[in-house]
Amino acid sequence: MAEDMRNDLLIRAARGERVERTPVWMMRQAGRYLPEYRAVRAETDFLTLCKTPDLAVEVSLQPYRILDTDAVIMFSDILIPVEAMGQEVRLTEQKGPELPDPIRTREQVDRLIVPDPIEKTGFVMEIIKRLRRELDGRVPLIGFAGAPWTLAAYMIEGGGSKNYAQVKRMMYAAPATLHALLDKIADTIILYLNAQIEAGAEVIQLFDSWAGELAPADYEEFALPYERKILESIDRDAAPSILFINGCGIFLEKMRASGADVLSIDWRIDLKEARERVGEGVTLQGNLDPCVLLSTPEIITAKARELIEAGGGRRHILNLGHGILPMTPVENARAFIQAAKGAGV
Amino acid sequence: MAEDMRNDLLIRAARGERVERTPVWMMRQAGRYLPEYRAVRAETDFLTLCKTPDLAVEVSLQPYRILDTDAVIMFSDILIPVEAMGQEVRLTEQKGPELPDPIRTREQVDRLIVPDPIEKTGFVMEIIKRLRRELDGRVPLIGFAGAPWTLAAYMIEGGGSKNYAQVKRMMYAAPATLHALLDKIADTIILYLNAQIEAGAEVIQLFDSWAGELAPADYEEFALPYERKILESIDRDAAPSILFINGCGIFLEKMRASGADVLSIDWRIDLKEARERVGEGVTLQGNLDPCVLLSTPEIITAKARELIEAGGGRRHILNLGHGILPMTPVENARAFIQAAKGAGV
Repeated sequence: MAEDMRNDLLIRAARGERVERTPVWMMRQAGRYLPEYRAVRAETDFLTLCKTPDLAVEVSLQPYRILDTDAVIMFSDILIPVEAMGQEVRLTEQKGPELPDPIRTREQVDRLIVPDPIEKTGFVMEIIKRLRRELDGRVPLIGFAGAPWTLAAYMIEGGGSKNYAQVKRMMYAAPATLHALLDKIADTIILYLNAQIEAGAEVIQLFDSWAGELAPADYEEFALPYERKILESIDRDAAPSILFINGCGIFLEKMRASGADVLSIDWRIDLKEARERVGEGVTLQGNLDPCVLLSTPEIITAKARELIEAGGGRRHILNLGHGILPMTPVENARAFIQAAKGAGV
Repeated sequence: MAEDMRNDLLIRAARGERVERTPVWMMRQAGRYLPEYRAVRAETDFLTLCKTPDLAVEVSLQPYRILDTDAVIMFSDILIPVEAMGQEVRLTEQKGPELPDPIRTREQVDRLIVPDPIEKTGFVMEIIKRLRRELDGRVPLIGFAGAPWTLAAYMIEGGGSKNYAQVKRMMYAAPATLHALLDKIADTIILYLNAQIEAGAEVIQLFDSWAGELAPADYEEFALPYERKILESIDRDAAPSILFINGCGIFLEKMRASGADVLSIDWRIDLKEARERVGEGVTLQGNLDPCVLLSTPEIITAKARELIEAGGGRRHILNLGHGILPMTPVENARAFIQAAKGAGV
């Protein structure tokens, strides 16, 4: 493939370089809204899909082939390294993750290991290597991991949560135990992300999805230091970093202090206001409400163009404010991607 | 009861008058964390409890008797007027509300009525009258209602929701239908709250609990105008108003434009920062993370005192940032209430 055919818009936007147009991809773009994905899943359970490079590569590439996205994100799950740490994880896409032996004591924290990412999660690195070969430089490949607060929430709650009652109970009543867990997760994720970069990931997204549930002072104590530690410890010359937090608008300035190259923001904050608050030195990713993709291609095109306009064509990556919803019609997802490419309806 | 025995701290704080100390109550203070409440519920289903004045009065008074709160809130549910509008509502406290025939079309909106609050929900007014008699002026009585956006979300989703996909789909694809519904709900709630005030409610809380799920521009179009319309149309000389929105921190200045006397804020924003942003002319209510009440009386006392300090002793009502969790130990709830009274541990 000729050098000038390479679409590296996402990487240039992440680094704050000039781009010809705003790049676009979608969180959870390899997922249930695609019939091609559902066809693979019909024959394979979720965890097997995560651990079988042939299949994971296939579903990672589907949205690129079908929708022509400006990036491919490897198919995986943020709980893969948690299983590698020694906690049992059951992944069922419909019900969400279940961790039948939730962490509640210091002894349980101490029993967890900091796994060697190649030895324990070599299949992830294999997926990345194969994706790089398949893509052959056409669009960048995104690797990812969950951040310590968000992973700790799953590990302590034993799954998804409405109130985060158990992890917060530990946070208020036994903060040293929580810090010990967060530290161990951070060490795990640093090794895990550096292994991804070495395997060929060209951009890294760190998901601290549930850090927006914290009071600002708690965010500063229990989430931000671990985000920063990870982002400082990975090879960012090789791969710029994106930090996503759902509900980050209230502490955007603090989030900025994580040092991420890109802040991925949810739809509850106006993009222009976010830009004013963080200044020019960081890229913003987002931030259409995923529910807009349930409307019509015309409405989606109009709203995506408004966002591209608000983003000003520099230091902006068009994306949703959270993951695409499974009931999204494919033609609506396509309208979103195509809006960035100037096609649209 | 002698005039000088009257504890009207909450009303004075709401009106911005001087108070000797910060008043305190808790959202959902009449609820499952109290064994006395569970004893009543063991023999009565939730909807029957809402509609039986003897029982509703009893559970409303329990937290005042047991914890010595500075206010009593009537026991009811925000979906009571929705049932009166003509939509079937099934209330089961464990599973949350179920509305088996969700609103999806303009025809369904047109079939809903604006009910006469006395004729259709006279039991609510009876509960208020009896509570006023029982309280005999000792502490203020709070009435309440849901705001149009939040009620519409339940009516369109057919219950609680994770993504608000259906109501937002209508918002983006059929905004005129949603506005027609919001308007009808607003008219219903104005009559309903004025009937409550006439029956004796001394403070009104309007719950727009899920308006924080909206993008700021959508909040301004689909939530704020209806909050404002209601707050402008009720007799606020007779009863000051409180507006609660979970996740309001991002658009606090817009929320201020609702005209509420008190803004009830969740824990995701720092109280001092909230004060700086809204200025001195409005009272703030909140904003302890309800999960703090799962820790220990010592931690609760310390955190509540920090909040009282941050509130500055004026124009502040101590409360949680959302409803108390059912698994909260009673002694922890008591520690929270007593912290405002200078007792504590």
